[in-house]
Amino acid sequence: MDLSDSLGIAVLGLGRMGRFHAANLAAGVPGARLAAVAEADAALLAEAAARWGAARSHGSVDEALADPDVDAVIVATPTPTHADIVAAAARAGKHIFCEKPIAQDPKVVAAACRAAASVTLQVGYQRRFDPSFERAHDLIGAGAVGAPYLIKLTGHDLQPPPLEYLRASGGIFRDMAIHDFDMARWLAGDEVAEVFAAGAARIQPEVASLGDVDVAATVLRFRGGCLAVVDNSRQSPPGYDVRVEVYGPDGHVVVGEQTLTSVTVWRQGGGQRDPVHPWFTERFADAYRREIEDFAACVRRGSPPRVRGEDDLAAISIAGAATRSLRSGRAEAV
Amino acid sequence: MDLSDSLGIAVLGLGRMGRFHAANLAAGVPGARLAAVAEADAALLAEAAARWGAARSHGSVDEALADPDVDAVIVATPTPTHADIVAAAARAGKHIFCEKPIAQDPKVVAAACRAAASVTLQVGYQRRFDPSFERAHDLIGAGAVGAPYLIKLTGHDLQPPPLEYLRASGGIFRDMAIHDFDMARWLAGDEVAEVFAAGAARIQPEVASLGDVDVAATVLRFRGGCLAVVDNSRQSPPGYDVRVEVYGPDGHVVVGEQTLTSVTVWRQGGGQRDPVHPWFTERFADAYRREIEDFAACVRRGSPPRVRGEDDLAAISIAGAATRSLRSGRAEAV
Amino acid sequence: MDLSDSLGIAVLGLGRMGRFHAANLAAGVPGARLAAVAEADAALLAEAAARWGAARSHGSVDEALADPDVDAVIVATPTPTHADIVAAAARAGKHIFCEKPIAQDPKVVAAACRAAASVTLQVGYQRRFDPSFERAHDLIGAGAVGAPYLIKLTGHDLQPPPLEYLRASGGIFRDMAIHDFDMARWLAGDEVAEVFAAGAARIQPEVASLGDVDVAATVLRFRGGCLAVVDNSRQSPPGYDVRVEVYGPDGHVVVGEQTLTSVTVWRQGGGQRDPVHPWFTERFADAYRREIEDFAACVRRGSPPRVRGEDDLAAISIAGAATRSLRSGRAEAV
Amino acid sequence: MDLSDSLGIAVLGLGRMGRFHAANLAAGVPGARLAAVAEADAALLAEAAARWGAARSHGSVDEALADPDVDAVIVATPTPTHADIVAAAARAGKHIFCEKPIAQDPKVVAAACRAAASVTLQVGYQRRFDPSFERAHDLIGAGAVGAPYLIKLTGHDLQPPPLEYLRASGGIFRDMAIHDFDMARWLAGDEVAEVFAAGAARIQPEVASLGDVDVAATVLRFRGGCLAVVDNSRQSPPGYDVRVEVYGPDGHVVVGEQTLTSVTVWRQGGGQRDPVHPWFTERFADAYRREIEDFAACVRRGSPPRVRGEDDLAAISIAGAATRSLRSGRAEAV
Repeated sequence: MDLSDSLGIAVLGLGRMGRFHAANLAAGVPGARLAAVAEADAALLAEAAARWGAARSHGSVDEALADPDVDAVIVATPTPTHADIVAAAARAGKHIFCEKPIAQDPKVVAAACRAAASVTLQVGYQRRFDPSFERAHDLIGAGAVGAPYLIKLTGHDLQPPPLEYLRASGGIFRDMAIHDFDMARWLAGDEVAEVFAAGAARIQPEVASLGDVDVAATVLRFRGGCLAVVDNSRQSPPGYDVRVEVYGPDGHVVVGEQTLTSVTVWRQGGGQRDPVHPWFTERFADAYRREIEDFAACVRRGSPPRVRGEDDLAAISIAGAATRSLRSGRAEAV
Repeated sequence: MDLSDSLGIAVLGLGRMGRFHAANLAAGVPGARLAAVAEADAALLAEAAARWGAARSHGSVDEALADPDVDAVIVATPTPTHADIVAAAARAGKHIFCEKPIAQDPKVVAAACRAAASVTLQVGYQRRFDPSFERAHDLIGAGAVGAPYLIKLTGHDLQPPPLEYLRASGGIFRDMAIHDFDMARWLAGDEVAEVFAAGAARIQPEVASLGDVDVAATVLRFRGGCLAVVDNSRQSPPGYDVRVEVYGPDGHVVVGEQTLTSVTVWRQGGGQRDPVHPWFTERFADAYRREIEDFAACVRRGSPPRVRGEDDLAAISIAGAATRSLRSGRAEAV
Repeated sequence: MDLSDSLGIAVLGLGRMGRFHAANLAAGVPGARLAAVAEADAALLAEAAARWGAARSHGSVDEALADPDVDAVIVATPTPTHADIVAAAARAGKHIFCEKPIAQDPKVVAAACRAAASVTLQVGYQRRFDPSFERAHDLIGAGAVGAPYLIKLTGHDLQPPPLEYLRASGGIFRDMAIHDFDMARWLAGDEVAEVFAAGAARIQPEVASLGDVDVAATVLRFRGGCLAVVDNSRQSPPGYDVRVEVYGPDGHVVVGEQTLTSVTVWRQGGGQRDPVHPWFTERFADAYRREIEDFAACVRRGSPPRVRGEDDLAAISIAGAATRSLRSGRAEAV
Repeated sequence: MDLSDSLGIAVLGLGRMGRFHAANLAAGVPGARLAAVAEADAALLAEAAARWGAARSHGSVDEALADPDVDAVIVATPTPTHADIVAAAARAGKHIFCEKPIAQDPKVVAAACRAAASVTLQVGYQRRFDPSFERAHDLIGAGAVGAPYLIKLTGHDLQPPPLEYLRASGGIFRDMAIHDFDMARWLAGDEVAEVFAAGAARIQPEVASLGDVDVAATVLRFRGGCLAVVDNSRQSPPGYDVRVEVYGPDGHVVVGEQTLTSVTVWRQGGGQRDPVHPWFTERFADAYRREIEDFAACVRRGSPPRVRGEDDLAAISIAGAATRSLRSGRAEAV
């Protein structure tokens, strides 16, 4: 491979996700290289450059967007900055991988999509790149169980975030269930027509005062008649628990739990299996690497990415309908 | 054991379930014996007496109820006859095990419960006697996961019954989901306040003309705030699929699928596990035996049975609310 | 079914296994009936007749063998009596199901086989009738993995028997591993040429003084080149542990562990599965019923049984070679 | 972290394993950096330097050993060169991570160990760093099942190597089973006293002419009495199959199969699980990263590595005894 011919990627923002992407690029993403890092914090910037060998360090996003060696950017800055950076990057002719969501407001998301029409824009719904979810999707697409008529999705976090975070989160549907809504759409291959949601504040009773819940059950009805049921919880002592089952006339596909190891200890009383992954960063480590590999490949081929801005828009719209249903007690149109 | 001291049980009706119960009694139920069989069909009656060694054969239910050697009856006649036989048996002072449901009309069930107040009346929700479901119930009761806040129940049949059967079935909620509703109540240890149901006719499109569906998702909200999600399907090519998961603050209990054997064949492409049980008779063979053992023990001890007439009443009422919700598109009170 | 036409079976001996067989016959074995029970203990005899409805009760084996209503016998008396009863039953023209082993001495087994040449003689290696082992056998026979070249068998008991029992047991290979040797022959479809065995007294060190071991590893080489590895232990706190794996050029078949229920409890630290069956009577309850069903069917059809006297002879001979190898430290011919 | 203070590691040899280690170092190994690469092939060398950002490129091992910026080396050159490089690196004062084996001849291994006495020498038995095997080891060490008395190890390759490779491999025990022998020692916490091995040429009959086998069963007896059984096969269509079970008086620990995904497809006939990892590089990707992390940590702390040269010596000696036993038909002392 001629490295000078590879896609020069700049990582914008060196928080947890930015550092994760930088390390993956340093380890080697076919057809791509870590061209630059951008971060206002000088110490973080210096360490990242040394650790992962980025050719250039920029103290600001604008500087990075002006760098001619940068072909594409990974937007890993705080969420409220995403939409503006997407627009600016598109104006600078850079291809864009943006962490999810672009914004919580569907109108802002839609505007960002329009602004980025001339470049490749991929959004970070990384579950679509998890080998298990991808395999389920491909099996269904190949007709393994026939046309889906029932999808069940489980998404439970290890433990709830601080109330302060929840206050700005947009609620459990926009913050957590949105990943399941995106997965449901992808697996169903269809758009959601209406949503019913129920919930309760059982883990942190204080969330009730925010108008939020921390245990929720959501029923989606797709235009073509497929049903989906999503259950979410902010607390799961065994670990981060993300699973799915897809039923069709010929059977069902299961994405089961993934334990940290394949160890079981059998003693009097039964067999103790190891816990599941504690958190999404561990559970989806492969997916975070693979989504960037696919982004680089799509840009180089000029093909559309697996997760477009419009997918973010659809998911955020379902989350809005679920939020309305929680209050109305009836199914709400998306 | 002095067999003359054992509980004399008459099996009323020698259809599939009656024969099942007769064979279990013949193989030995502690503290009980097969005292009599009653059946209008003379050939069935003669064969049953010979095969399972029943001491007496009766050509009618009335004759059996008049038999002084009969202490208790198993009502395994067609459903529309249940309520009257329950009342008559109670008048005759016989203890009663009645196959579910007592009736589809809650008022009729309530009346039968009142009529049987002086005897032991147990209803045939056999899943409560399945070793796996019973173990889940006991673990939850022992506080294994804390107070439940989310219960997920799956109930899929191998294949749909004929349309003719469906016409008289009362719909998917009264006919199928009712078992899940009973299980949800038992596991939650609480009563259902309201129900939302969604469904579609995807397997036999003709059921739509009956106002029925064959794929359904139901959300229950219990008085204490626990949520339950039930999914049902009339068709499941891998076999009869009944599972449950119960979540609380400290973890979750899973009753998983049960395969016919513990065999897996690993070849290129993966590992093929054996199918699950084809039908409820196989899946719950143990439960059908154990519910009669427990019935006999309850009668002999004078203790209340695990499944009372009131449980049938509660389940049929939830099914009614689900049926209403399917039409209204909103949560309905039970 | 005309019951008078069914096979009249007498159960000889009403210890644990005899009572087990009597209960199964009472519950219904197609084409067979419990014609008689024979037992020296009068109380046991009376109770069995009442409980399982046997038509006749005999105070001795001889009396039962003289009963013209008895077509076949189940020999469930103490092991040292088996060979003589087999010969006497054959002389009386009765078909024979004999609990294993016929005898510990291969010569005595061979003589009993010759004596019973004119009737059907089946030996109680019940594992061959376990649905999982049978399925594995059938899959291999159908070529699922090609011609087997490696078989691994595990047989661990819940807890060791008293030393007194062990003293007369013939050692771990004749007493325990013999079931695995029979299974290995059946799955390989071949005869064992030589055996290497190693062992240690680790659970009850006193067994060393009997020249016995309580943990053992045995390697079998079949004539056709297939290898088998058997591991045995007299103690297994998680429960009775019997498994097998069969490898061929196209993959492998696994008979895995069987837990009491399908329940798993997930909490902080992992998922607790329920224990396996505690003992062989629970683990092989189905097999004990199915072996008698098959015996009755074979007798009625006049077809050879699945487990012949010669199979007992082969297994006991392998056990003898393993016992020799334990001492010699080298592979021994069978 | 001050990177100038980190351990400078040179990767010697840029074949498959060398490139693997270089990529892992580039992605970030705490306390270490990729200081240099050494390789005779100029194109490989140039590409590696560009791709992984190695500070220096050396055309020979000698040049790398003379580089003052190099604190430690990873020996990933062809096996016959290992022993000499280990000695040279030790003379140059470099710490050493050497791919296994150091040599096939125990005497050469012993000499290399002596030569490297003054530096840290770790050998690449990477399975000890696999999260599942490590967890099993730690559980056993913590007394989860008591003192081990039986260990069962399975090691099957996806497909056999070319005969040419086999000719120089030293046979199945030195080439394949050696990993299982090392694992058995580590899990037992004891040394092997004697070995019995049986085998057959079933996959590539031509290996018989090399005096080798391609299916093997080996029984190890440890000094303390623990038994181990190892089974190996050169072909496994479902994928690379490495598992272990360790039994003690209180239960057993299982390291089970690891499938590529957590997907199961349930259809008529059963549930199809995804295949296991195809090859050791995929199965042990984590282990290859973690062994280098631990090596770096040990060097920095001055603590002994998890796998020492003496462990390689012990494993190669067991393999030699197994090879002798295969011919003699009796247990051989190590």
